[in-house]
Amino acid sequence: MKALVFHGPGQTSWQDVPDPSIKDAADAVVRVDAVTICGTDLHIIKGDVPEVTPGRILGHEAVGTVVETGGDVRSVRPGDRVLISCISSCGRCRFCREGHYGQCRGGGGWVLGHTIDGTQAEYVRVPFADLSVHPLPSAVDSYDAVLLADIFPTSYEVGVLNGKVQPGDTVVVVGVGPIGLAAIATAQLYSPGRIIAVDLADSRLAAARELGADATARADEQPEQLVEDLTDGLGADVVMEAVGVPEAFEMCTRMVRPGGHVANIGVHGKPATLHLEDLWIKDVTLTTGLVDTYSTPMLLKMMAAGRLPAASLITHRFELGQMEEAYDVFSRAAETGALKVALGGPRHDTLTVQTPGK
Amino acid sequence: MKALVFHGPGQTSWQDVPDPSIKDAADAVVRVDAVTICGTDLHIIKGDVPEVTPGRILGHEAVGTVVETGGDVRSVRPGDRVLISCISSCGRCRFCREGHYGQCRGGGGWVLGHTIDGTQAEYVRVPFADLSVHPLPSAVDSYDAVLLADIFPTSYEVGVLNGKVQPGDTVVVVGVGPIGLAAIATAQLYSPGRIIAVDLADSRLAAARELGADATARADEQPEQLVEDLTDGLGADVVMEAVGVPEAFEMCTRMVRPGGHVANIGVHGKPATLHLEDLWIKDVTLTTGLVDTYSTPMLLKMMAAGRLPAASLITHRFELGQMEEAYDVFSRAAETGALKVALGGPRHDTLTVQTPGK
Amino acid sequence: MKALVFHGPGQTSWQDVPDPSIKDAADAVVRVDAVTICGTDLHIIKGDVPEVTPGRILGHEAVGTVVETGGDVRSVRPGDRVLISCISSCGRCRFCREGHYGQCRGGGGWVLGHTIDGTQAEYVRVPFADLSVHPLPSAVDSYDAVLLADIFPTSYEVGVLNGKVQPGDTVVVVGVGPIGLAAIATAQLYSPGRIIAVDLADSRLAAARELGADATARADEQPEQLVEDLTDGLGADVVMEAVGVPEAFEMCTRMVRPGGHVANIGVHGKPATLHLEDLWIKDVTLTTGLVDTYSTPMLLKMMAAGRLPAASLITHRFELGQMEEAYDVFSRAAETGALKVALGGPRHDTLTVQTPGK
Amino acid sequence: MKALVFHGPGQTSWQDVPDPSIKDAADAVVRVDAVTICGTDLHIIKGDVPEVTPGRILGHEAVGTVVETGGDVRSVRPGDRVLISCISSCGRCRFCREGHYGQCRGGGGWVLGHTIDGTQAEYVRVPFADLSVHPLPSAVDSYDAVLLADIFPTSYEVGVLNGKVQPGDTVVVVGVGPIGLAAIATAQLYSPGRIIAVDLADSRLAAARELGADATARADEQPEQLVEDLTDGLGADVVMEAVGVPEAFEMCTRMVRPGGHVANIGVHGKPATLHLEDLWIKDVTLTTGLVDTYSTPMLLKMMAAGRLPAASLITHRFELGQMEEAYDVFSRAAETGALKVALGGPRHDTLTVQTPGK
Repeated sequence: MKALVFHGPGQTSWQDVPDPSIKDAADAVVRVDAVTICGTDLHIIKGDVPEVTPGRILGHEAVGTVVETGGDVRSVRPGDRVLISCISSCGRCRFCREGHYGQCRGGGGWVLGHTIDGTQAEYVRVPFADLSVHPLPSAVDSYDAVLLADIFPTSYEVGVLNGKVQPGDTVVVVGVGPIGLAAIATAQLYSPGRIIAVDLADSRLAAARELGADATARADEQPEQLVEDLTDGLGADVVMEAVGVPEAFEMCTRMVRPGGHVANIGVHGKPATLHLEDLWIKDVTLTTGLVDTYSTPMLLKMMAAGRLPAASLITHRFELGQMEEAYDVFSRAAETGALKVALGGPRHDTLTVQTPGK
Repeated sequence: MKALVFHGPGQTSWQDVPDPSIKDAADAVVRVDAVTICGTDLHIIKGDVPEVTPGRILGHEAVGTVVETGGDVRSVRPGDRVLISCISSCGRCRFCREGHYGQCRGGGGWVLGHTIDGTQAEYVRVPFADLSVHPLPSAVDSYDAVLLADIFPTSYEVGVLNGKVQPGDTVVVVGVGPIGLAAIATAQLYSPGRIIAVDLADSRLAAARELGADATARADEQPEQLVEDLTDGLGADVVMEAVGVPEAFEMCTRMVRPGGHVANIGVHGKPATLHLEDLWIKDVTLTTGLVDTYSTPMLLKMMAAGRLPAASLITHRFELGQMEEAYDVFSRAAETGALKVALGGPRHDTLTVQTPGK
Repeated sequence: MKALVFHGPGQTSWQDVPDPSIKDAADAVVRVDAVTICGTDLHIIKGDVPEVTPGRILGHEAVGTVVETGGDVRSVRPGDRVLISCISSCGRCRFCREGHYGQCRGGGGWVLGHTIDGTQAEYVRVPFADLSVHPLPSAVDSYDAVLLADIFPTSYEVGVLNGKVQPGDTVVVVGVGPIGLAAIATAQLYSPGRIIAVDLADSRLAAARELGADATARADEQPEQLVEDLTDGLGADVVMEAVGVPEAFEMCTRMVRPGGHVANIGVHGKPATLHLEDLWIKDVTLTTGLVDTYSTPMLLKMMAAGRLPAASLITHRFELGQMEEAYDVFSRAAETGALKVALGGPRHDTLTVQTPGK
Repeated sequence: MKALVFHGPGQTSWQDVPDPSIKDAADAVVRVDAVTICGTDLHIIKGDVPEVTPGRILGHEAVGTVVETGGDVRSVRPGDRVLISCISSCGRCRFCREGHYGQCRGGGGWVLGHTIDGTQAEYVRVPFADLSVHPLPSAVDSYDAVLLADIFPTSYEVGVLNGKVQPGDTVVVVGVGPIGLAAIATAQLYSPGRIIAVDLADSRLAAARELGADATARADEQPEQLVEDLTDGLGADVVMEAVGVPEAFEMCTRMVRPGGHVANIGVHGKPATLHLEDLWIKDVTLTTGLVDTYSTPMLLKMMAAGRLPAASLITHRFELGQMEEAYDVFSRAAETGALKVALGGPRHDTLTVQTPGK
């Protein structure tokens, strides 16, 4: 089959690789029907994630069709259209039993496109399939559902739920790329009183307004002043960091009200300065986290009911074979206006399934 | 009357000052029967707290006897023996209505010995008396109760409750001065599985063991290794910072397990480095906070039932007039072994009350 | 002034009474600009609430203009347009400190039109004014705001919050009179997946659909079957009782899923049968409660932002002097289609204030 | 092998039956080393639990040694000494993913000695072994651990946690048989201020005092008055029902304070009367539930640390072959003073394991 293989910093190719096969009785092999590229993939290609070694197939978000299952798999069978979660779950370790699948100690967690081959391929082997894929109802389009693999549960769990958004709250989202936009979309499930989006790009701020932001501020035009003005000088109830740089995080800690929450969603490569001399007295809660995807069944239900604005987040569509072109467009987002790029065939809804290599 | 007056950095004196009187219908004037010195007072004297201006009477912890009340005061009357909380509450602002008295916007919060005259005096005016003092049951000794003015509710609310200590947890307390020791005492209300105390002073580690710590480590002898060994490499469920320096806070963030809590109790004067490059993926919750004292009624009930080990935290007792000597002993804690020093007369249980100046 | 006076079971009259005046320094006297009638008032008139004695002025919901305040009142002053909460709060007792104002032990709780004279009058004395009235922003119409006196906070706190409505949930509201309809409106702040309304009256079910119910069932046409069908036989996540009769409550306990919540909002006069032989194994949480009105500030903010559908709940408007006619229409709701009836002058927005009796 | 077989109401026998064997790849077969009898077993024998059909081996509590495992089992292997939980968990269904194993829809839940053969036998087949048995640390005695199969997690989850016991609370436990006593023991993990035990048997009240009850009342000597007296007329914060009869449940609802919790633990065969005419206004939370056993790992850790008073709950010990004698003693508890009776060999700590029938 074809797959996007990482060959070391700066080097990838869409190339022939052996087909995946069942290695463990809990595995499923899934044909990839729709797949996207994550900002994290760009970090990997830059060499920022040393756990990803040359030869690894990238990608941790996809929708596909099950083609083969191991002997222990009970929840899905060949022919099922499924969402492949970015997080796998062994279901047995202490963390999985508590719903903290992202911290799985039993061989799961974020493994796809990280420590095992991923989804930017024609087929992918998914471990612990019973707990790591979700059968899709027919009402949900594959290109919508693929956003449930990572960005919707990440923004919802790590941003909205960790940040404890409540009805009436003033919520600030700093950084409105795909994750920040998904945070704006999912924050509305808790009816905040006001959502303020902050970013450097006007195009993203426009997208934020379309998705429900009530106010926007360019990051270089005193967003802190806007927050202060809109909250009578008190600060925001919840501030989410969806950038991943120290300056953005530090801005978040200045924007939050006494008793408020700062929820970090961004992937950081460097330390930030925590101004404890101001914050010690302020009753602030700061949270970090990798997604667990425990909310995926609920989000899938809301998507099936037409209550998550998925479509507007995918700005570009490609055939699976155009993987390198898709990466090019996605990596030049400032220029191309790309939010999420999706790849896949038009035939993702067929049920004719062929085991790979046969 | 006599009081300890701050005259600018490095300068205080126990001197004659005018007696306090009722200024607002919600005030009470209280005769001070037992009072202590807080580490924060030492910071003020050094000049670290610029809101405290020359001429201010210091002190925010005391037990006393009500001598006069304003017309609005309904809950106490002259003759009542009361705990004076370090936090005053207007009862009307948004924060007070939510129980966040420490963040009061209506003239309360931490005001005693900070923005108004405090308790290190023969008499003190307490604003918003109905919500800021607590009548004491006769079963509770004044020298025990004075620890409920600040250190017990602070360690319990900002450490134990913010840190969400649960039965079975591994809890680390970094810094076991009076606040850290009170955190060890109050953490046991939630039956953690194991408490580990960390400090530089062997005498404090010994006190920690007496108060219930199961293991101790000197801060300069690889306490992180101990935590790792005792938790199978996972880290602690809850880590409390009770020092107030960046190094201690940063150590806490390295000791916490994925999914765990770091509760900052320390008063900080400098920023810390937050290693988001490690923490972003770790599901960690960091909290800061000033005490609200919403837990004081419960803690008072537990103290009355003999379930808080107050006595062992007071190492030195003085007459009120020995204020300067008491400060000297407390400020040389490493040398004197002082935990809390308490001052007051032996007659604190009398009900013969005289209005000041009469 | 004129007021509606209760003279014993079945007897009321709109008659001259003495003007109210300040009795306590925490009181305010308020001119009534908009007032409504509650189902509870009908119960009182029937004689079901023996605490209400002859001579009592009825009514516990109103919007008005402050005309006089006692010496302790700090938050409002004459001329302020205010919402009068159905619950008064002393602010000092244990329950008030915990935000449980409805259980106030210090002279508050539900007192207006119950144990002291109420709001169905030209003027009303409100005790503990600082904590018991809410200044209204100009963006909020008095006839909308009057619904915040009781039915919105009641349905939200006792129904939605006690019932722990979560995004994606299936919510059933049994009984969709004004309270049930307000529950449907406020449940949407938590984005349930589906709201099912049950009632005997088709007109109310139609109102429920307009306010956001996704499905409706007549109480006499197997509503339990509908719930079962829509939830794959599992039952609803949250079921709210908004009728106040045993049969409705018992139906709720049959409709709830294992692990779900039954939130009772209805005022009951008789015991119900609790089928513990079925429920003991089912992980069900049942809650009861009088409103506390701690959510009123948030709801007011949402109303000011146009996010609560108040207007559609008031079906009839009268002049204040038409009180008896209004009662007649409201008491024949099945016939008249009345939901809430509101009374008041058109001049409720004027700021010209006159102390009563002058 | 030998096992206790139910032959219909009133009829059981300790008899020869075929050895169990692996039927599913997730199964384990365990040699029973220590087993107890539950009050529920007596209900089954009376015929109260119609799901239990003739031919069924009873029992749902045991400690044993794994003798054989199916191909999917990863967490335990032959020779491991394990606790067999009364609840099995498929790990895949919606309820298991949320930790609500007791409500498992995938073939687990309470199945042992109910819908499949149980533990009152020499060997037992345990389905979903990875999630349904717990390896025991050597520090824990088998006869202590067997109490973790049901009574400790049941009393803790369904009583203490559902009842939300908090430090300082007044807790009443109505019915202090084994479950009620375990509730007294585990409630102390949250440091209530006072525990009041109610029962008809003086011997059980004496046991309650030994386990930590601060006050006791005979059920027929005005226990409600005692609760009222001890709480200044307010009522208890938490009341647990551990009897299973309507009168006891109804007493609980009269003892609870406004804002308090009634946690039902008892197994009920008949409906109770719920006095909604009193309770509707009282802010009461009532909970029911079957244990999920999510707390078992924590309780096991506390037991290993010597912090659960297990030993005192087992009053009688028998050889496994004395099953009928043990039932006789247990069923005449009032007379024999039996709390828990335990059966098993003295050799339960051996690691010599033999596959049954070989």
